[in-house]
Amino acid sequence: MDYYKAPLAEMTFLLEAFQYPERVQSLEAFEMFDIETLQALLETTSNIAQKELLPLNRVGDEEGIQWDPETGDVTTPEGFKQAYQTMIDNGLFGVTGPAEYGGMGGPEILGIFFSEIATASNKSFSMCPGLTRGLVDALRAHGSDEQKEFYLPKLISGEWSGTMCLTEPQCGTDLGLVRTKAIPQDDGSYKLTGTKIWITFGEHDLADNIIHLVLARLPDAPPGIKGISTFIVPKMIDGERNAISCTGLEHKMGIKASPTCVMDMENATGYLVGTPNKGMRTMFVMMNAARLHVGCEGIALGEIAYQTALAFAKDRRQSRSLDPEKQDANAEADNILVHPDVRRMLLNVKTTTMALRALATYIAVEYDVAHHHEDEEVRQQADDLVALLTPIIKSYGSERGFENISEAMQVCGGAGYTTDWNIEQYLRDERIAMIYEGTNHIQALDLVGRKLPMKNGRLMQNFSARVTELIRGCKDNEALEPFVTPLKDASKKLTAVTWELAAKGAEDREVAGAVASHYLNLFALTTLAFVWTIQAKYIVENEVADGETRLKLGRYFMDKVLPEVDYLVSAIGSGKSNIMEFDVEEF
Amino acid sequence: MDYYKAPLAEMTFLLEAFQYPERVQSLEAFEMFDIETLQALLETTSNIAQKELLPLNRVGDEEGIQWDPETGDVTTPEGFKQAYQTMIDNGLFGVTGPAEYGGMGGPEILGIFFSEIATASNKSFSMCPGLTRGLVDALRAHGSDEQKEFYLPKLISGEWSGTMCLTEPQCGTDLGLVRTKAIPQDDGSYKLTGTKIWITFGEHDLADNIIHLVLARLPDAPPGIKGISTFIVPKMIDGERNAISCTGLEHKMGIKASPTCVMDMENATGYLVGTPNKGMRTMFVMMNAARLHVGCEGIALGEIAYQTALAFAKDRRQSRSLDPEKQDANAEADNILVHPDVRRMLLNVKTTTMALRALATYIAVEYDVAHHHEDEEVRQQADDLVALLTPIIKSYGSERGFENISEAMQVCGGAGYTTDWNIEQYLRDERIAMIYEGTNHIQALDLVGRKLPMKNGRLMQNFSARVTELIRGCKDNEALEPFVTPLKDASKKLTAVTWELAAKGAEDREVAGAVASHYLNLFALTTLAFVWTIQAKYIVENEVADGETRLKLGRYFMDKVLPEVDYLVSAIGSGKSNIMEFDVEEF
Repeated sequence: MDYYKAPLAEMTFLLEAFQYPERVQSLEAFEMFDIETLQALLETTSNIAQKELLPLNRVGDEEGIQWDPETGDVTTPEGFKQAYQTMIDNGLFGVTGPAEYGGMGGPEILGIFFSEIATASNKSFSMCPGLTRGLVDALRAHGSDEQKEFYLPKLISGEWSGTMCLTEPQCGTDLGLVRTKAIPQDDGSYKLTGTKIWITFGEHDLADNIIHLVLARLPDAPPGIKGISTFIVPKMIDGERNAISCTGLEHKMGIKASPTCVMDMENATGYLVGTPNKGMRTMFVMMNAARLHVGCEGIALGEIAYQTALAFAKDRRQSRSLDPEKQDANAEADNILVHPDVRRMLLNVKTTTMALRALATYIAVEYDVAHHHEDEEVRQQADDLVALLTPIIKSYGSERGFENISEAMQVCGGAGYTTDWNIEQYLRDERIAMIYEGTNHIQALDLVGRKLPMKNGRLMQNFSARVTELIRGCKDNEALEPFVTPLKDASKKLTAVTWELAAKGAEDREVAGAVASHYLNLFALTTLAFVWTIQAKYIVENEVADGETRLKLGRYFMDKVLPEVDYLVSAIGSGKSNIMEFDVEEF
Repeated sequence: MDYYKAPLAEMTFLLEAFQYPERVQSLEAFEMFDIETLQALLETTSNIAQKELLPLNRVGDEEGIQWDPETGDVTTPEGFKQAYQTMIDNGLFGVTGPAEYGGMGGPEILGIFFSEIATASNKSFSMCPGLTRGLVDALRAHGSDEQKEFYLPKLISGEWSGTMCLTEPQCGTDLGLVRTKAIPQDDGSYKLTGTKIWITFGEHDLADNIIHLVLARLPDAPPGIKGISTFIVPKMIDGERNAISCTGLEHKMGIKASPTCVMDMENATGYLVGTPNKGMRTMFVMMNAARLHVGCEGIALGEIAYQTALAFAKDRRQSRSLDPEKQDANAEADNILVHPDVRRMLLNVKTTTMALRALATYIAVEYDVAHHHEDEEVRQQADDLVALLTPIIKSYGSERGFENISEAMQVCGGAGYTTDWNIEQYLRDERIAMIYEGTNHIQALDLVGRKLPMKNGRLMQNFSARVTELIRGCKDNEALEPFVTPLKDASKKLTAVTWELAAKGAEDREVAGAVASHYLNLFALTTLAFVWTIQAKYIVENEVADGETRLKLGRYFMDKVLPEVDYLVSAIGSGKSNIMEFDVEEF
């Protein structure tokens, strides 16, 4: 059974606590989008998702995807096509798409919340519009005016969908190894030949056309990553099939209603996007958007797993309360919510899911500021924060999301392991998030190897300044002490480790590689403590419904979750330890 | 693809390092079982498992179990029946069964290693003999002579199989709520009526008969756990079907080739085992054996996942080494084993799997001493250690096993998420181990609420004495310093927390409940540091093949895994925090 109500009240609270009106709605681009408008839009989205997507979630998992080896056609499960059309009819695919191309022109946070609701309701389904949105971003940033005018309106409406064709059998993480060839033609187009794998919604029956964004090499391209260009390769051109087709599907642990395609191109017609050999720039626009959304998948599935486990717990009676006063004399056993460990598990899931959603909100606000603020310095600072925090939310959001779903399953005991409660599907569906869009360790390397040293450490300095400013703002407020003290402590440890890493890592890059994943988690926990403290400050300074509950939840996070920083600091401290001294035969 | 070779050399090393010859083979019961004999038996087991069980693992997952609603018959996947017969033909089900009833009479460690190999090869399949073995133990301890003579030979050979019928729809963890009724008959037998759920191999086509051990209430039984009796309810009596049948199957995330049955009894004939109303004693014999084996499932599937990930890693080339000297000039990319994080993940899995196997060995040695040593005091001390460490290996073994398989999947990237590499099946198959045979939190409550206070804390004192003795024995040996220092530190923290918990928990039982799961993990990590140190001492004092590698692996554990104790100490320190102050509506 599916238990889900979109957390709309929570979303409204976050818009307020993270100063959406002052920081985003105040920007010219978003003046029409006040909180009430966003609420109304989210409510519509939520109703449609509940009615159209949620009931197809288990069906999709069971039925899976059909592929016809003769034609290469891919058929999505029963009901998906109609749900897709309903989304188009309600204009839900284009909420953040630019108004000039038919989109709603909404703020990033609307897209994030929309995507959370859609993912919680049906992750497989929502991956299709997710990729399309990424393609829209990439074309907006690097497409020609002609390309924008031709492709964006149909992508934004959802009539056409998008893909990202990066991986090949010999190259996943290491895109420098791409072999797909693009040969220039007299008419300015290109002929592409090669095989791409892991292509999400590479072929399907939901949209009229599929627009592939393909990494390939020009004949004279330099080797490696500096010789990669990006091309648009449509499935259909002027009503004719292009020479790109699906030659197989992957069989996966989860997201079984999302086709993961092998795509073969044999002189397929394509069109260059952006500058030759600078294709990674275009792809990174798409990938960065995707990374933020992948982090949010952990929030979405963590949320629905939490709601399911809570529904189970509220219903289930088993054993007696340890406190005789809480025992229910009218029943043979007490409700399991009396048991401390059941509460502990639920609180772990709830307080980390809330914290991650708060972090997503924080990033989304900065995202819009970075793109629309009039002051370049403000834009730059906001952009720094988005760049710094994107790998963190992608990696920690997916890792914690997976752990949270497993913990929610544990609350349900044996029932959680059966298909009756669907948590097992959420767990399977979420696991891929730690792998795709750059494995979590790639995020850690991006953080340590790129984002930290970038601009002489300015990104990290910007973040530290925000933390310091927040701590200063909380001064002398006793109610905030349970937040400020642990935040200070974590932040101090993070800073110390960062300096040490900068020193050690410069000498020996393997040390940086060996500790990067632990370092990212240390950073993530500190960031979550930071966004909890922002909320606590807001609650203490304003009238907030459920304010006391929120403060308790935040304190739980600070007491029970945050202390993992102590472990991470120790593990980072031992550097590369013996890791590199093992010969291959010793493994 | 399945990659697995039973870790026979590792097993031999553990037998030596944990003094199997001196402590177990020296017991009269096991004098025939020298290390060479065990090696030969394990090699046979390994060959058969490799040939018969491993190839059926994926098949079993895909084909699953068939249930006929008309007859209640349950059909196992193609090939299972023949594999079962091969096991019987080779006498592999009875390795630890007593010789007087046709078993081989081998030591517990043989059973543990046998079960690891069988579980790694095919977890679903191996659950059937696993339950039978538990039933054998229970009948040995509490059956009448007549019952032993009648049932044991056929259970030990495998001609008949066993089940454990505890759970009912309204009672899982809380067995006091059992409602199944047993009415005494004039001939000394009983008629049982009730419904049992989650019955593993409750019905199947592998054995000629199925012997159910059923919890039920006599008409005059006191309420709750003190009114539960245990009954044998055979599927077949004198060639006739008894009134117990399978009325449905659960649909699960994993172990899909293991039937999880709903069993209905309608005046089924049963026979009392042991004393009326003292049925939990019998069930606990079965359950304790099962708990040790469930912990070992995490070792088994962690091991096969590791071997699979290592095979993948050895083959895969991607990106360049961070150390220019390690770059392979003859290839486009380096083997991924050059990357520190790939190594870190593999070492996490390897060093914790090894440590858990060492802990299992330690417990198995004590188990035989507890049952067969001539000196009562020695037996008692050994029994204390088994009782104390059983919940630890069940809980931590299953939790870490699940994490380890997920980490092995991460090494393989996207490939790990597909069904091509089987890790996804191991992950699904392992997840239930955290739930069944008492959820992991039940283990934690058993540790904190029963084992610690038992006999005025004697169990813990016994363990502490062993740690102190080991540390003293390592004194002045510089090579052991990297083990002794962190072990001392962890053990000191564990002791301090234990005292604090004893004081706080006595005042407020909810505090003990709130921190029990973290406390168990703190205890587990300390125990794993202890068994690593035992091995290190053995290596330093003896000639050991791969001794240097083993020491490096142990140091990795001490540097990178053990420091989690710091987190756990903090989390325990904050007690029940706000956990109990949330109203139900606040969740």
